[in-house]
Amino acid sequence: MAFRGMTSMSELLLKTKKFNVVRETVRTPSGKDKTREIVRHPGACVLVPLLDDGRVCLIRNFRISVNATLIELPAGTLEPNEPPHVTAERELIEETGYRAAKIELLHAFFLSPGILDEKMHLYLASGLSEGATAREEGEEIENLVVPWQEAIDMVFRGEIKDAKTIVGLLWVDRLRSG
Amino acid sequence: MAFRGMTSMSELLLKTKKFNVVRETVRTPSGKDKTREIVRHPGACVLVPLLDDGRVCLIRNFRISVNATLIELPAGTLEPNEPPHVTAERELIEETGYRAAKIELLHAFFLSPGILDEKMHLYLASGLSEGATAREEGEEIENLVVPWQEAIDMVFRGEIKDAKTIVGLLWVDRLRSG
Repeated sequence: MAFRGMTSMSELLLKTKKFNVVRETVRTPSGKDKTREIVRHPGACVLVPLLDDGRVCLIRNFRISVNATLIELPAGTLEPNEPPHVTAERELIEETGYRAAKIELLHAFFLSPGILDEKMHLYLASGLSEGATAREEGEEIENLVVPWQEAIDMVFRGEIKDAKTIVGLLWVDRLRSG
Repeated sequence: MAFRGMTSMSELLLKTKKFNVVRETVRTPSGKDKTREIVRHPGACVLVPLLDDGRVCLIRNFRISVNATLIELPAGTLEPNEPPHVTAERELIEETGYRAAKIELLHAFFLSPGILDEKMHLYLASGLSEGATAREEGEEIENLVVPWQEAIDMVFRGEIKDAKTIVGLLWVDRLRSG
């Protein structure tokens, strides 16, 4: 089991809609006190929506933070007290319009643990049926449904520049080829 | 080429040692103005240090943000005006003690583009020779040198919970098997 340190002090520096920033002092495994500013995030989920015909539903998503449209898997932030698989089901429908008969948790990982505690839950969504999307006001998203091998080729041609999407596609590629 | 929006307004909300938080309003591709709080980060690099005998040098790294020791690839934050390959060379030595005869850029990707602009540059480091580390005061890091296939197995057993490390290992696994 991983060592878990003790938080001895925490100070709220900033509250925003999607995250908070705190300053925390933690006693590390070697017994030293270290102080860091940390972005606290409620966690998120990302889905690999695999169609019965072997295609995958990616999205084009305009991202203000990097001022560009990225090719991503559908994903979303956990609402307060929401179990991640509920977020996953909701976001799949909202962002892509697809409903999934089956959603399986594959892994959970951290995105930038030097500064950010965001934990990303990775799901495989299958048994998909098409329906209406429920994109939020101002969400600039469109579906990009491609053959599986094309999605993997897009990763290694460098066209996919989003970490959770690269992890999700390569993880499922291993499942499909194993 | 990806669309790039126009920043019409930016307000600094918080300055910390490793990142800033800003509130920005951007005109999106569809012509709407959207306002978001964004964590601005100078960018970072991560290395896959591949030994001549086929082993890879991972590290165990205690992370305050998630209060746990994670298994990661060596990585570090860009200093102001520092080209990423210089950061990569420096961090490899500081964190692991290994010097690389060759460092190649493989890809660059974003870690959490919904809230964070951090861009991670992925390098393959080869021609390694062992030397002294120069870990910063308070860095709690130790080397974990494992056979290549064991590192890949650690990914798929869920033991590696860091996005940049999963991307780095699976990217180089493809190069090695292709």
